[in-house]
Amino acid sequence: MNSPVKIDRFPANPLFRPEDIQPSQPNLKIMCSFNPGAILFQGKRLLLLRVAEMAIPDEGCVATPIFDPETGEVHIQQFKKDDPDLEVPDPRFFKHKGKIYLTSLSHLRIATSEDGLDFTIDEGPSIFPVGPYETFGIEDARITEIEGTYYINYTAASDFGVVTSLITTTDFRKFERKGIIFGPDNKDVAIFPEKIDGRYQAFHRPAVVHTGKPSIWTASSTDMLDWGRHEYVIGPRSGHWDCERVGAGSAPIKTPEGWLAFYHAADYSTRYCLGLLLLDLKKPSKVLARSEEPFFVPETPYECEGGFMPNVVFHNGTIAPGDGTVELYYGGGDLVTCGARVQLSDLLSHLK
Amino acid sequence: MNSPVKIDRFPANPLFRPEDIQPSQPNLKIMCSFNPGAILFQGKRLLLLRVAEMAIPDEGCVATPIFDPETGEVHIQQFKKDDPDLEVPDPRFFKHKGKIYLTSLSHLRIATSEDGLDFTIDEGPSIFPVGPYETFGIEDARITEIEGTYYINYTAASDFGVVTSLITTTDFRKFERKGIIFGPDNKDVAIFPEKIDGRYQAFHRPAVVHTGKPSIWTASSTDMLDWGRHEYVIGPRSGHWDCERVGAGSAPIKTPEGWLAFYHAADYSTRYCLGLLLLDLKKPSKVLARSEEPFFVPETPYECEGGFMPNVVFHNGTIAPGDGTVELYYGGGDLVTCGARVQLSDLLSHLK
Repeated sequence: MNSPVKIDRFPANPLFRPEDIQPSQPNLKIMCSFNPGAILFQGKRLLLLRVAEMAIPDEGCVATPIFDPETGEVHIQQFKKDDPDLEVPDPRFFKHKGKIYLTSLSHLRIATSEDGLDFTIDEGPSIFPVGPYETFGIEDARITEIEGTYYINYTAASDFGVVTSLITTTDFRKFERKGIIFGPDNKDVAIFPEKIDGRYQAFHRPAVVHTGKPSIWTASSTDMLDWGRHEYVIGPRSGHWDCERVGAGSAPIKTPEGWLAFYHAADYSTRYCLGLLLLDLKKPSKVLARSEEPFFVPETPYECEGGFMPNVVFHNGTIAPGDGTVELYYGGGDLVTCGARVQLSDLLSHLK
Repeated sequence: MNSPVKIDRFPANPLFRPEDIQPSQPNLKIMCSFNPGAILFQGKRLLLLRVAEMAIPDEGCVATPIFDPETGEVHIQQFKKDDPDLEVPDPRFFKHKGKIYLTSLSHLRIATSEDGLDFTIDEGPSIFPVGPYETFGIEDARITEIEGTYYINYTAASDFGVVTSLITTTDFRKFERKGIIFGPDNKDVAIFPEKIDGRYQAFHRPAVVHTGKPSIWTASSTDMLDWGRHEYVIGPRSGHWDCERVGAGSAPIKTPEGWLAFYHAADYSTRYCLGLLLLDLKKPSKVLARSEEPFFVPETPYECEGGFMPNVVFHNGTIAPGDGTVELYYGGGDLVTCGARVQLSDLLSHLK
């Protein structure tokens, strides 16, 4: 049995709801604002939110906003609801003649806070889709600082599949695109904050279709672009809270005991909770400890009532200011942006 | 409309049937011998066959042979056919309590020929599973020679998923394992016979679960171990012979017009045919030409009557002796090993 972790949700939660955010263009509407990457930048908390925008359909239609890499514009495609070739199995997507379309197009947007209490969000997108691999949007950024460079990895979706791509920045104004680092389908990539044995390290979550279930792997790289030495870390556990799929959260935290890593997991009912891993400092595929029970579960209305899905806490941004506290930034109910404060010592005790 | 390619199937086809091959141990039975990698080695044709072995189940049972990485031995696991937790949806695998087990365990075995007419096969395995990522076997080798080193990539299956791993050799006696080069799920990797712009090149076929269908991508590498710069090449075409999935065949052939590449594709009925691509010499993700119709379709009894699946030609081994002919080694009906001779000029005309 793991010891519980005291979760101090921010009183201002949810920090961002869809109605707090300006659409990127007049014919789009904010559907969700969630799953922020997070980092301390020049003494400020900086969040990189996923902002999902929908198109407003004509009466009797469903609509999909698609980024057009040729024109650089968002193209809105509509289908009649009574079209016999249309299937709408899920609020996140629909199918027409077997081809999948997302109901929203996501971009990344910066929000900042001086004190970790009040956050203000930019009026427009910070990072918008570019090129053929991002036509269905860009999602769920993780930010890792290594020697003054900020590495932003994110999920990019298109007709070609779901890939993880990389952007670097030093100032969060100019962004340098580095392209795909993990080919399809791969998401939930989290880059470690330092090299091990001369190689950059990352968690990734490749798709499996034949045997196995969606699991966390590590890979490493000399240049952050070409990745290899893939190793399995953990997978779903039958009958547990993490039985269906697992994926890494933010960059792990280095502690004397090992790498403290966060992960999210879904059960059969797609309830998303958060767990912890302690990994060997020199060989991060080696698991020293793992949460038997989740340390963070959906409890509040803004976590239990959903946008795309109810009963979700999904975390991909952590700030550890160095005073023994750890701030977790997360998406609640697949709809809104939230924050919570925990004690690092509590997290480590949980794993003992 | 593509011009047809004259296919001279070898008169000795099938070159290897299951009954021609010695099992690796007395309690296993050869189920299929197919999908050979191929190379000219010291003037001889060398094939690296996939040999799939099954366990003989007790009366009223199904059995799975599993490689045990702890002991290095094959462990045979059995389930009662009337077990309510057992599902047998396919001759290739069954499920127990939702977990997948393969009905066979594959290894790789060398066959050689002085003249390309008579082939002899080794009595035992050349490359057998090793380690935790190969417990369900190793399959479908491709061989590429670069400057005297032979790079053998193959599909490895386990509970962790389906990955592509690499072995190098200079003599086909001593094999050096290089580990996973493409994480799960990824198969149908084919390494180019030379570097482009200082980087090794490969086709790969990653799994997609959300959007898109199984498609051919390229990636490149400086050391053959860490791979990046992933680019989409081709995917299935709705309503065509290659509508369901596509994957690369052997290493492509360099011609003055471009890289001539082979691919297999399945349609909705899982009939597997072969097609061709012509790719830009400097940028192999750029498609110059593609087969509208397959150049090679299952026609003979040994292609149309199946082991795992009927109506299959699956090619992953090519030998171009330099006289204008091209020898294609392939699996027929997912059961036997076959060969066919074509003219290089015919293949290029087909794409014009």
